[in-house]
Amino acid sequence: MFDLESWAAPRREMLQQKMDALFADAWPEPFRAMCLHSLQTGGKRMRPLLTLAAFEAVDGGNPEHAVPAALAIELVHTYSLVHDDMPCMDDDAERRGKPTTHVLFGDDMALLVGDALLTEAFRLLTDPALPPELAIAQVRELSTSAGYLGMVGGQASDLGAGGPVTDVETLTRLHRGKTGGLIRCAVRMGAMAGGAKPMQLQALTHFAEAVGLAFQLADDVLDAEEDAGSDGPPSFVKLMGVEGTNAKARELAAQARGALEAVPQADALEALALFTVERKV
Amino acid sequence: MFDLESWAAPRREMLQQKMDALFADAWPEPFRAMCLHSLQTGGKRMRPLLTLAAFEAVDGGNPEHAVPAALAIELVHTYSLVHDDMPCMDDDAERRGKPTTHVLFGDDMALLVGDALLTEAFRLLTDPALPPELAIAQVRELSTSAGYLGMVGGQASDLGAGGPVTDVETLTRLHRGKTGGLIRCAVRMGAMAGGAKPMQLQALTHFAEAVGLAFQLADDVLDAEEDAGSDGPPSFVKLMGVEGTNAKARELAAQARGALEAVPQADALEALALFTVERKV
Repeated sequence: MFDLESWAAPRREMLQQKMDALFADAWPEPFRAMCLHSLQTGGKRMRPLLTLAAFEAVDGGNPEHAVPAALAIELVHTYSLVHDDMPCMDDDAERRGKPTTHVLFGDDMALLVGDALLTEAFRLLTDPALPPELAIAQVRELSTSAGYLGMVGGQASDLGAGGPVTDVETLTRLHRGKTGGLIRCAVRMGAMAGGAKPMQLQALTHFAEAVGLAFQLADDVLDAEEDAGSDGPPSFVKLMGVEGTNAKARELAAQARGALEAVPQADALEALALFTVERKV
Repeated sequence: MFDLESWAAPRREMLQQKMDALFADAWPEPFRAMCLHSLQTGGKRMRPLLTLAAFEAVDGGNPEHAVPAALAIELVHTYSLVHDDMPCMDDDAERRGKPTTHVLFGDDMALLVGDALLTEAFRLLTDPALPPELAIAQVRELSTSAGYLGMVGGQASDLGAGGPVTDVETLTRLHRGKTGGLIRCAVRMGAMAGGAKPMQLQALTHFAEAVGLAFQLADDVLDAEEDAGSDGPPSFVKLMGVEGTNAKARELAAQARGALEAVPQADALEALALFTVERKV
């Protein structure tokens, strides 16, 4: 029986140690603490763990080759939270019980901290230990998934840039970008680092897409249980009902499990997927 | 006699055509116009022209290899303007006579547009036409120059993250990051694309550092002439006087010219440097 926590704990600690060492030689020196704050408020580190698990699933390379990508995906996720929390977006004063970056350091510094985290994510992928072909493929993957074709586009849609979202197809596309993009990217960057064969990469991509959407469906059910009101953003529960949403999530979970048959070491990925869908990441 | 405008005009037009074609397939579709707005308000395109001129100065490669870097540097410069113009930073409603991104589309969209431009800059460097070694070296250069070790760090210092700036050394370091970083990066990415030899790359780096700082000195003299008040941000004129600042700018210009002796085709670079120092970029 695979125990997720025994697998995740040492990896989470390794990631935190590497993150604590980031932004060395920052100038001005106090800017370093501002950049590190949002990386030191806990979090389940689901995306970088997906990267490491996808690497281990195909089991074909130098473990050091997956670490820059794991850190980069967490930096991109974290920059998006720092910017999202700002007053001109969601205006959140706390995250995981701690004050958000803009509350501690001001809106101007939060804007710069987000910009610094995003930029540093790409710098991490230029680690000289990575073969250039792998590094540039990962930069392509991350910039595509995080930018206007992925996360940022999904956020723009969520904020109404394309008008109100009133159907399942549009909502699916929104979430495929907003939350699904980084989950897909996390898995693919890890698989690439592990030297996945084309068929394996394709299967893991299907896996990641199913998990990403199932996560959102589960999240919508959770939100609907907490708040029965009809206000707020569009959700799958509003468009398909609780039962329809749960049925779709089960279907996607089955697809994700099926996709994992293509890789030799799927235990950690499968456990993470279950965990991702069952709880808020 | 080298005519800068005859050299620059067709290159500026080529760059604009390439920029107009960016953010294709954006979703939601209206987000595309939001991303393009700040790229279509004119500007002298000094940084991408420096990239192309540095490429031509060493004259050693495929001209297509310099174009992604030229576009990327302009996208990074433009993202920094979009974020700088926001109410939580400089709160500027107009730039070059046109409304700024946040005035037209809201603060939330301006934040996302800046994020999208920055992310897309890195995606452009993954152009499959570039050799992976060159592409990843350019990603390293751009992420170092634009992030906490360069532009963003300089901006954080300018906003007081390190306390008040009261001496020439600190002010020099601030501007070396804030404005000098991208100028240095623009020149170095172009030189790399042109296959510069190590000595040439070193000389062009000295050239770019001298030009970047001379630009800032000239800018401070210009600002001091426009506004004799002693309020406002720290400046070289306040710390060294108009005469001292002009003398330092002349010294740097001489250093920049001297550095250009190491490359075979320096006409465009020299003219751009003169233009950069004489006018506001």
